[in-house]
Amino acid sequence: MSSDLKLGVSILAIGSEILDGRVQDSNSNFIAQELQKYGLTLDKILVCDDKVEEIIASIKFLERSCRFLIISGGLGPTTDDLTREGVSSFLEVPLIERPESIERLKILYAKRQRTLDPSNHKQALFPSTSKPIANNIGTAEGFHISKNLNAKSFDIFSLPGVPKELTPMFFDYVLPKIQDEYKVSQGYRRSFRIFGIPESDVGSKIKSLNLRDTIFVSYRASFPEIHITLKGNNPSEIDDAFIKCKNIIEESYIFVEDQEISLPETVCNLLLSSNITISVAESCTGGMLGSYLTSASGSSKYFLGGYMTYSNKRKTEDLLVSNETLSTYGAVSQECAIEMANGCRVKTGSDIAISITGIAGPEGGSQEKPVGTFYIAISDRTASYAERYFFLSDRAAIRKMASYRALDTIRRHIFPEKTVATS
Amino acid sequence: MSSDLKLGVSILAIGSEILDGRVQDSNSNFIAQELQKYGLTLDKILVCDDKVEEIIASIKFLERSCRFLIISGGLGPTTDDLTREGVSSFLEVPLIERPESIERLKILYAKRQRTLDPSNHKQALFPSTSKPIANNIGTAEGFHISKNLNAKSFDIFSLPGVPKELTPMFFDYVLPKIQDEYKVSQGYRRSFRIFGIPESDVGSKIKSLNLRDTIFVSYRASFPEIHITLKGNNPSEIDDAFIKCKNIIEESYIFVEDQEISLPETVCNLLLSSNITISVAESCTGGMLGSYLTSASGSSKYFLGGYMTYSNKRKTEDLLVSNETLSTYGAVSQECAIEMANGCRVKTGSDIAISITGIAGPEGGSQEKPVGTFYIAISDRTASYAERYFFLSDRAAIRKMASYRALDTIRRHIFPEKTVATS
Repeated sequence: MSSDLKLGVSILAIGSEILDGRVQDSNSNFIAQELQKYGLTLDKILVCDDKVEEIIASIKFLERSCRFLIISGGLGPTTDDLTREGVSSFLEVPLIERPESIERLKILYAKRQRTLDPSNHKQALFPSTSKPIANNIGTAEGFHISKNLNAKSFDIFSLPGVPKELTPMFFDYVLPKIQDEYKVSQGYRRSFRIFGIPESDVGSKIKSLNLRDTIFVSYRASFPEIHITLKGNNPSEIDDAFIKCKNIIEESYIFVEDQEISLPETVCNLLLSSNITISVAESCTGGMLGSYLTSASGSSKYFLGGYMTYSNKRKTEDLLVSNETLSTYGAVSQECAIEMANGCRVKTGSDIAISITGIAGPEGGSQEKPVGTFYIAISDRTASYAERYFFLSDRAAIRKMASYRALDTIRRHIFPEKTVATS
Repeated sequence: MSSDLKLGVSILAIGSEILDGRVQDSNSNFIAQELQKYGLTLDKILVCDDKVEEIIASIKFLERSCRFLIISGGLGPTTDDLTREGVSSFLEVPLIERPESIERLKILYAKRQRTLDPSNHKQALFPSTSKPIANNIGTAEGFHISKNLNAKSFDIFSLPGVPKELTPMFFDYVLPKIQDEYKVSQGYRRSFRIFGIPESDVGSKIKSLNLRDTIFVSYRASFPEIHITLKGNNPSEIDDAFIKCKNIIEESYIFVEDQEISLPETVCNLLLSSNITISVAESCTGGMLGSYLTSASGSSKYFLGGYMTYSNKRKTEDLLVSNETLSTYGAVSQECAIEMANGCRVKTGSDIAISITGIAGPEGGSQEKPVGTFYIAISDRTASYAERYFFLSDRAAIRKMASYRALDTIRRHIFPEKTVATS
């Protein structure tokens, strides 16, 4: 927010689960990042307990330096969800039951083949002067109150704390109101997403370009992806810097440009549009790669099937891996990975097949093949090849990294000449 | 914190980098988790900007309900590091330069082969009544002020915002002081985790018990699990309420007590300890169940393998599902689910096999079998059975719910008589 703009946007996150450490308040960071795209910086973030008097004191404190207050959490149906009570007490208006909201809840519950419990009626209670904010995901509608307080306009937006419900409600209802008030628009932005190089390398490469300070570069690590955004007011300057950044980072690491999609989504899109069918053979990842490849709607068009061949017996019986290969090279080997991919492709008749075999740990490592070693092989109608990888981390991260490496192998295999997907 | 303990611990995080979204305030979550180990819940978390008047107003607000205030950030050498100024203004005491701190900085800078710039002298300034808190990692010493304010004791700990500096300073200096103060009033906690009933039902059931308000009940939804914690000062009262809660919620929904483990971890532990081998046959979940079952170290002891039979061809070829079943009942049917599980068990030779078939959407639904319909079957050496489920949500949530239902089916199958795992 520009410094002459005194009254800003604050967040009140309500929930003991944040105060006792069970949950990290990710909503506030998300809202802060979204507002920053419009040059707006939050005034304050406050986390308070699910208690009416705490909520009232917190709103009173924030209201003094605040034009818009976004409240997250406390809209559920249980007794410790007290946001509606807190806000109505603060404003000294009664809570009233909205008949439309009761109808909405009845329909939602019927769809879920459940009956509406009287305790759920609570979710139809709103401060009398409020307007509802639609929630298309969950049961908790939000509400908006706009009023004059201490001779200034003050707006409260109350949203549920569940991130996937709060996010669309913020974009659809809250953000347009804030944009409107401050007459702000996003600067010019270009972005790309990377897999396969460490964040520090990306950072030092871009730093070596000595870009002008009118170009704001931001990095976000979403393990194991890195998202990079360039922002500024001069489009041609940003476009120019964007090309420089792409050139200094080897372009094949960039899996998507100017689109907010993950590597799994990128690969699913590529498979859908390229009419290539695929099957998978997984050992240490136990189905994680298959789960990513079937995360998109329409995946039945390209995903024929797969095998979780955890044991040697499954590798020989399901994937036709030879006993000789297993005894000579072991299950975690280039040879085994290739036979797994070949066998998988032959069995399913897919255009390509991909295999993962490795040691996710924490047990099972050796001097020659330490925990974190994995092989990924790809097989198509003309050839097959395998690569060895090593990733030093815990079991969950190693498995995720192996699955992402396999996804990236598919991406590079489908588009070897131009590996970056563009919008 | 127990409800009779009015004055608690709050955090003030100072820094525009949190308010503009560049950095997530991870320190507060870390401190919250550490205090929770001693039964202490934070009173408030507030993030404010690096401005003296903001810092003063924030401390004033927090001080009212607070015995200990932990301030993070703003102790660096730059002009926008204003925590020392803010705190001394709030307390109306001057800032004085500590000669010992100047000497310390000189030594530190010499070690780093840099000379001490006059601007760095700022890091030797402290409110006159404060004691230094040693920082063995970085240049920023912290400080501690203890004073009587508004007829009560009030302690401020000011720590640098860099997590690797704050962490040891919190453990070495702050935590012992807090432990010392609350020695007699650590809370007593019991917890359990549920899968399979909506949060609102759990809430209304527990509410109907009319538990005393010395018993603090908290709910946390970690989709699709619900975690419930009872807290208070009187152990026998909490134990008693704990049993009442377990009785009113059908006990079989509780998958774990007094342990912070998820349903996938619970099921992996059960399989490990029961010496039962398992295999899986997945259609719409495409490997997600297998991925959960292999998330634990040692899963090769029980997980023999699995099949991602997305296409009908894979169901017939890999799992021996009959073409007649597919043409008569369809792939999403009780009959198909049972044949998938049976075929999977026969193929792998596992003790039990579990199958999932369903419609994850958003396409592919019908009147009779809408999106969100799925069947889960389990087969062992003596019998097999399938259940139909319906879950209204988006593709990702439906797939996760189906995988969790399958995990819960395994849990109930292994321990039909006593379905709850205890520590």
